[in-house]
Amino acid sequence: MRKKRKLSRGVALVGAGMSQFGMFRDRDSKDLFLEAFRAMTASVDKGLDPADIDAFYLGNYSNDFFVRQSHWGAILSDTLGLVPRPATRTEGACASSALAFREGVFAIASGFYDAVLVGGVEDMSKGATEVVAEGLGMAAIPYEREVGFTFPGVFGTIATAYFDKFGASREHLMNVTIKSHDNAARNPKAQLSATLEEVMAAKKKRAESKGRPVPDWPDPKAFLGDPKANPVVAWPIHLFDCCPISDGACCLLLVGEEMARNFTDDPLYVAGIGQASGRGLHASEDLTTFEATRYAAREAFDMAGIAADEVQFAEVHDCFSIAELLHIEDLGFFPAGQGYKAVEEGQTRLDGSKPINTSGGLKCKGHPVGATGAAQIFEVWTQLRGEAGERQVPGHPRLGAAQNLGGTGGTSTVTVLERR
Amino acid sequence: MRKKRKLSRGVALVGAGMSQFGMFRDRDSKDLFLEAFRAMTASVDKGLDPADIDAFYLGNYSNDFFVRQSHWGAILSDTLGLVPRPATRTEGACASSALAFREGVFAIASGFYDAVLVGGVEDMSKGATEVVAEGLGMAAIPYEREVGFTFPGVFGTIATAYFDKFGASREHLMNVTIKSHDNAARNPKAQLSATLEEVMAAKKKRAESKGRPVPDWPDPKAFLGDPKANPVVAWPIHLFDCCPISDGACCLLLVGEEMARNFTDDPLYVAGIGQASGRGLHASEDLTTFEATRYAAREAFDMAGIAADEVQFAEVHDCFSIAELLHIEDLGFFPAGQGYKAVEEGQTRLDGSKPINTSGGLKCKGHPVGATGAAQIFEVWTQLRGEAGERQVPGHPRLGAAQNLGGTGGTSTVTVLERR
Repeated sequence: MRKKRKLSRGVALVGAGMSQFGMFRDRDSKDLFLEAFRAMTASVDKGLDPADIDAFYLGNYSNDFFVRQSHWGAILSDTLGLVPRPATRTEGACASSALAFREGVFAIASGFYDAVLVGGVEDMSKGATEVVAEGLGMAAIPYEREVGFTFPGVFGTIATAYFDKFGASREHLMNVTIKSHDNAARNPKAQLSATLEEVMAAKKKRAESKGRPVPDWPDPKAFLGDPKANPVVAWPIHLFDCCPISDGACCLLLVGEEMARNFTDDPLYVAGIGQASGRGLHASEDLTTFEATRYAAREAFDMAGIAADEVQFAEVHDCFSIAELLHIEDLGFFPAGQGYKAVEEGQTRLDGSKPINTSGGLKCKGHPVGATGAAQIFEVWTQLRGEAGERQVPGHPRLGAAQNLGGTGGTSTVTVLERR
Repeated sequence: MRKKRKLSRGVALVGAGMSQFGMFRDRDSKDLFLEAFRAMTASVDKGLDPADIDAFYLGNYSNDFFVRQSHWGAILSDTLGLVPRPATRTEGACASSALAFREGVFAIASGFYDAVLVGGVEDMSKGATEVVAEGLGMAAIPYEREVGFTFPGVFGTIATAYFDKFGASREHLMNVTIKSHDNAARNPKAQLSATLEEVMAAKKKRAESKGRPVPDWPDPKAFLGDPKANPVVAWPIHLFDCCPISDGACCLLLVGEEMARNFTDDPLYVAGIGQASGRGLHASEDLTTFEATRYAAREAFDMAGIAADEVQFAEVHDCFSIAELLHIEDLGFFPAGQGYKAVEEGQTRLDGSKPINTSGGLKCKGHPVGATGAAQIFEVWTQLRGEAGERQVPGHPRLGAAQNLGGTGGTSTVTVLERR
C-alpha cells in the first residue's frame, strides 16, 4: 500500500483570506464567503483579476441540513461573479474544505486548470440547538450514533482511554485549553479571542455588577476546575474542552507552480498532501490513536521528503482538547503517550519547540466545520509569510503543516506547505 | 475565457457497474453501493484486485437530508473494505457523481493516483414525500425557492417558454416520453422497465379485474392525453413527463491510460470533459437554453477535438421531458428550436441518426440523483462496448457522450468517451 506519491506539476498557494469567525444572526454563507474572498483577493501581492480563476472548489459539510439549502458551489459562483466557471463542492464531515484544497491541487497538477479558487463555508448558528446537534451527529459512523454516542461522548470515551493508558488526567486537557486561549487572544479573527485570564476577569466583573458573589479563582486551572464555570459535558470533557458552534468562511488561491511569481514574490508551495479513511471508533482496537491521521501524515511527509521533526509548527484538529493530544502524537511530533507531557512542558506554545494551533485552534478560533480545513491552511500561510503579528512563530519558519479530521476518524488529511 | 483544455496524462475507463434502480424499502445506500461495486468488479475483463484501488470519489446529493446521515465517503469506504484509502464526496445537486468522475480523472491525470473508484449513490424513497420534496427543492437557487418555485414548476415554465418561442406543443413532450419507455423496456436495470403499451395493457387488465370500466386508449398518445391516467403536475408538465423518485448506485473504475490494458483489452478513453456553472432561472434572459450546458459541451468537444456532430449517441439529463429537448439543442446535436422536430422524426430513437437516452433516461431508468451522472456514463460504457443487448445502438459506435445537469442549471457537465 505504501507508495511515495508525487504530482506531475507543482502547485503554489498565492493568496489566502478568511472571514471573521463567530455566530452571526444577520450574515449568511454568501456574506461570509464574500468577506473571505475579498480578504483573499487583497492578499494577492501583485493583484488578482477574478477572470484568471479557472475553477472553484468549495468545502461545505451540511448547509443542506443547517440552513436547508444545498448546491452552494453554484450559488457562491454566482455570488462571486465567477459563472460560467465550474464549481464543485466536496464533503468529508469536518474535513470538507481540506478535501476541496486537495481537489484544487489535483485539478492544477493534471494540467487542466492553471488557477483554482478553493474555499470553505459553514453556517451553523441559525438553526435550533437540536438541529445543530443532529446535523453534527450525522458525521459520525452510523453504528456509533445507533448506540447513542454524541461527539462529546465519543471524545470523552477517547480521553478516558488515553488517561487510562498513559496516566494523563483532566489537568492535562486544561493545559491544551489554556494555550488555545492564549493564542486566540492574539488572533483578531478568532471567535473566542481572549485569554482565560480575560474570561475570568470579565466573569468577575459581571458578577460584581449584578451584585452576585464574586468567584475566587486564583488561576485558570482553578477556573477550569470550577464545575459552575466549566460544567461537565461528557466526562472528562467539560465545556472549555469543546470548540464552539461557528459561522465562517475561508478562501485560498492555488496556481501552477511555474506561474506563482506572477501573483506574488513570496508564494508557498504544496510540499506534501495526504488523506486516508478510517473505520471509526466502533472498529478501533486502540482508542488513543487515529489510524487515518497516521496514514495521511506518512503519505504527506513521504511526498515532501521530510521527517515529522522537520515540520516547524502545525494546525491540528482540536474539536475537543483531547483530539489535539492524539493528533500531535499521530503526526509523529511526539511519541505515543508523550503528547500531554510536551504540552505541559510548553513545547507546543508559541515560543516552544513545536508550536501547535497558533491560531487558537478549533477550540478558540471557531469551527465552522466546512471552513475549518481551509482556515487551518490560512493560518499556515499567515505564519510562513511572517504575517501573524503578535502570534507569529519566531525564526522565519519554512515548513508548516495542517491536519484536518472528519467525523470520528472517518477522514483525515495532512497538508505540508513550504516557503522556499 | 475559451481555452482548449487538456490533461497531462490520459485516463481510461476499465470497469463499470450499476445496481438495480427503483424504490427499495429494505435496501439502504450500503446495500445498493455494494451491488454496484460487485457489478463493476465483475465487469473488469482481466480481473480487479481491490487492493489496486488508490482512492475513492463518491457523488451524493443529500443523503444528509434524505436519511439523516452524512460522511458517506468514509462509510462506504469501510463497507467496501477500502480503508485506509481516501474517500471524497462531491456534490453538485443532480450532477453530483459527474463531478466525482471529473475528480477521479484529475486525481489520475495529476500523477498522484493510478486507479480510482468513482461512484454515486442516493437513497431517496425512505422518507416522507414532504422530505423528498424539500430535499430536492434545496438544489434550486434560493431566489427561485423564495418565490415558490418547485422543480416541476421551473420546468413547466421552461416548457411554456419553449412552446411559445418555437411552436412546439405538449404532443412533442409525449414523443420524448414514448421513446424513453421504449428504451427502458430493453433495460433490465431500469426502474420503469416497460413500454407505454405495456403500461396501458397492465392498467386495462387491472381495471378489468376490479370490475371497473376498462379505459379505451387507442395508442400511447391517447393514454398520455387522458387527464386521469396522466394528471397535470405543473402545466404543461404531466406525471409522465417527470422522472420518478429513486434509490440506486453506480460504480466506475478509472486508471491511467498507459495501464488500461492491464485491466481489459477493450478500455474506453476519456476524450473530453467539460463543466460549467449557471446563474439559474432567475437570471436567465432566455429560458429555452441552459448556458452551463452550452459552455460545458464546447469545453468537452474542444478537448476531444470533435464537433458535436461526431458524437454518435448520448445520455442527456431528462429530469423532465422538456429538459431532453433543451439539452439535445444545447449540446449542438440539433439547432435551437429544432430538437422537438428531430424527436418527432425519430432521429433520437435507437435506430435514428442520434440515439438519445438509450438507457431510458432519468425518466424511466430512474433518477437516484447522486448516482445519475455515473449511471449515464455506465450507459455510454455499455453501448461503446457493445454490451447493451436489445437496446444496442447499431454500427459499433466509437464516440458517446453524457450530459448531467444540477439544479435549475446551476451546474452542468459533459463527458465524451471514446473506443479506439
